[in-house]
Amino acid sequence: MEMTETDEVLSANLEFYRAFAARDATAMDALWARRLPVACTHPGWEPLRDRRGIVESWRRILDGSGAPGLMCHDEQVFLYGDVAIVVCEEEMRGGTLAATNVFAKEDGAWRIVHHHAGPMAPRRLKAPPRRSSRLN
Amino acid sequence: MEMTETDEVLSANLEFYRAFAARDATAMDALWARRLPVACTHPGWEPLRDRRGIVESWRRILDGSGAPGLMCHDEQVFLYGDVAIVVCEEEMRGGTLAATNVFAKEDGAWRIVHHHAGPMAPRRLKAPPRRSSRLN
Repeated sequence: MEMTETDEVLSANLEFYRAFAARDATAMDALWARRLPVACTHPGWEPLRDRRGIVESWRRILDGSGAPGLMCHDEQVFLYGDVAIVVCEEEMRGGTLAATNVFAKEDGAWRIVHHHAGPMAPRRLKAPPRRSSRLN
Repeated sequence: MEMTETDEVLSANLEFYRAFAARDATAMDALWARRLPVACTHPGWEPLRDRRGIVESWRRILDGSGAPGLMCHDEQVFLYGDVAIVVCEEEMRGGTLAATNVFAKEDGAWRIVHHHAGPMAPRRLKAPPRRSSRLN
């Protein structure tokens, strides 16, 4: 069964999180477009606007001692021809980030051209609030 | 002199911030694509994934009592044919946000299809760090 464009983009997005979680800086480098313009906004950072700076930033992040141990979920693909946006959430030990990943076709492959992640406020609990106890 | 594609995208981005700063919910509505898929991640929010929810969120934000009083600067356009990413910074009274705005051509006009803004850490001071004092 042939993959749809949406499947291909989801697969590229998964590769991105695989490289991230595996601290694989070489794979991360390969996922970013080579000729198309690229940008990257890490949580709390100024936007990075050049490939060299972006790859270097990832190398430093992935070399860091704090294990990322992250999971991506609730991915949704928005297609615009040869460009696609993936909106998703990144679950990390420190909390949840909202992420925007933009992919574009380069030499027939979906390459990442932009990543932007930022903190989400803590989720409202689905469960009813715990009763306060007079003993506490 | 004819506007370049980059000029056109910058102009659409300025319209976005004009509507934002002027609290013009009707103009904001008109700037978002009508048929192309749209998404929006406000600072700290879960990503919104439908036009109605996005327009409603802006209406509530622009109706709020806290004046946005914001300024956009350091805009840079990244072009991918009929899709463009603008990376910029939003200066607000509460601090600086890093923003990603994605535009796409719909009926020959650049319409916004995605907005993602999140807090930036306070800028490092350009001045040298203060010396520590033995008295403290």
